Amino acid sequence: MAQRYVRVQSLDGKIHYGLLQIDRKVQVLDAPPWLKGQLTTLELDADQCQILAPCAPSKIVAVGKNYANHAAEMGTPVPQEPLLFLKPPTTVIASGAEIFYPTQSARVDYEGELALVIGERCTHCTPEAAHSKIWGYTIANDVTARDLQKKDGQWTRAKGFDTFCPLGPWVVREISAGARLQTFINDSVQPAQSAAISEMVFAPDVLVSYISQVMTLLPGDVVLTGTPEGVGAIEVGDRVRVEIEGIGFLENAVTTRAALPQVS
Amino acid sequence: MAQRYVRVQSLDGKIHYGLLQIDRKVQVLDAPPWLKGQLTTLELDADQCQILAPCAPSKIVAVGKNYANHAAEMGTPVPQEPLLFLKPPTTVIASGAEIFYPTQSARVDYEGELALVIGERCTHCTPEAAHSKIWGYTIANDVTARDLQKKDGQWTRAKGFDTFCPLGPWVVREISAGARLQTFINDSVQPAQSAAISEMVFAPDVLVSYISQVMTLLPGDVVLTGTPEGVGAIEVGDRVRVEIEGIGFLENAVTTRAALPQVS
Repeated sequence: MAQRYVRVQSLDGKIHYGLLQIDRKVQVLDAPPWLKGQLTTLELDADQCQILAPCAPSKIVAVGKNYANHAAEMGTPVPQEPLLFLKPPTTVIASGAEIFYPTQSARVDYEGELALVIGERCTHCTPEAAHSKIWGYTIANDVTARDLQKKDGQWTRAKGFDTFCPLGPWVVREISAGARLQTFINDSVQPAQSAAISEMVFAPDVLVSYISQVMTLLPGDVVLTGTPEGVGAIEVGDRVRVEIEGIGFLENAVTTRAALPQVS
Repeated sequence: MAQRYVRVQSLDGKIHYGLLQIDRKVQVLDAPPWLKGQLTTLELDADQCQILAPCAPSKIVAVGKNYANHAAEMGTPVPQEPLLFLKPPTTVIASGAEIFYPTQSARVDYEGELALVIGERCTHCTPEAAHSKIWGYTIANDVTARDLQKKDGQWTRAKGFDTFCPLGPWVVREISAGARLQTFINDSVQPAQSAAISEMVFAPDVLVSYISQVMTLLPGDVVLTGTPEGVGAIEVGDRVRVEIEGIGFLENAVTTRAALPQVS
């Protein structure tokens, strides 16, 4: 099994990066692994920790319509160039945390995606140089309020609600080009989404290179590589599980905070 | 004169928040003022420091078409609700730093704007509660590659280039409702933009409340409140100065990095 790089919060509230071992021990690193974090003597029990999203990105750059069959199901052509948008860092939640269904929307969709974690500052990189800036891979769900996406034109609100970027559960260094991404809703054994990541229109190194011609990517930043065909609605009470071969699975339940009072 | 809150880098490379006095001394605070930073005994000479953008936002949330006369000049209606978009934190530069004209664009515009600096975590706030979360005010230039904005549909690339968010030079706590925003190009005494900030369609507290229903705003985050009529092109070699009464002015020259080699 590939080495799994996690970020955890221990009982004393401290946040650590570490390696999750098969016996559920976390070997703690003294810094994020992409900043050359070294093993310490500290070992934690994963079940006594909160597993956080595996990085804390300064930005999340996402790409629209990067699988031809998804562009087709949205009734739009495949873009000639990668179509960029941003999700704010406040969207990030860990695997196991809850997606809040916003009161402003009547149609919220899951979008299972491969996420890239950037390891080194990356600006004006060729695809070859960009490849070496991708430190590892994890799983994301680019949750989208589809009605607001259509209404606003700009996607910021629709894709920017708190909790709308489940990310994790951990980072691996390598992924096979043919790895399959699948999304499952609740107990269905029939995947709602199923595609090989090799079906992407623009490959990870091309995306990172393209983004780096616009904005500098920093260590720990995240690039979402787009979702394949099969997006669909989720409702309060649903569970969404996004699996990628060679990584694992990201699972989140959908809940409501409609009952929360406004701060006045 | 209103108290001016700055962020500076001293000769030893350290970054400090502080108060800029009339004699160009910087009285150093031990934390950002919105995190209750207290005065220390350290005093720096502003002319021996680099004046940075006055905050380091985790996100920059901006609003499109928030002045009726700017919506009209763009040939579009005033939105029924604030139209949100994001600029990545890597766009931020200080007053005096250079705006890089990207090779991908043939039409880059200035957009002078009032910027709000958030002082406290803000989520699901009413406009009244949002008002108290606005710690202070500064000046921004929401630089935009107008051709790419039209081409992409999503505004992320057009507004997301490194250096495309000049911000500063400092933060003040209060601003008069009738304060005038003016933008000047080079040595022209005729402003290219001139409007009272009271002409905004959605006022600062309404904007912050609206954004907080979507995403949690954090201390030091920045909200750009939209640009008035009079946007126009800038060219390599130009200087843009955005002035807001009661704050000061933000000035940046436009340069090119076309000659920089790609990292390969």
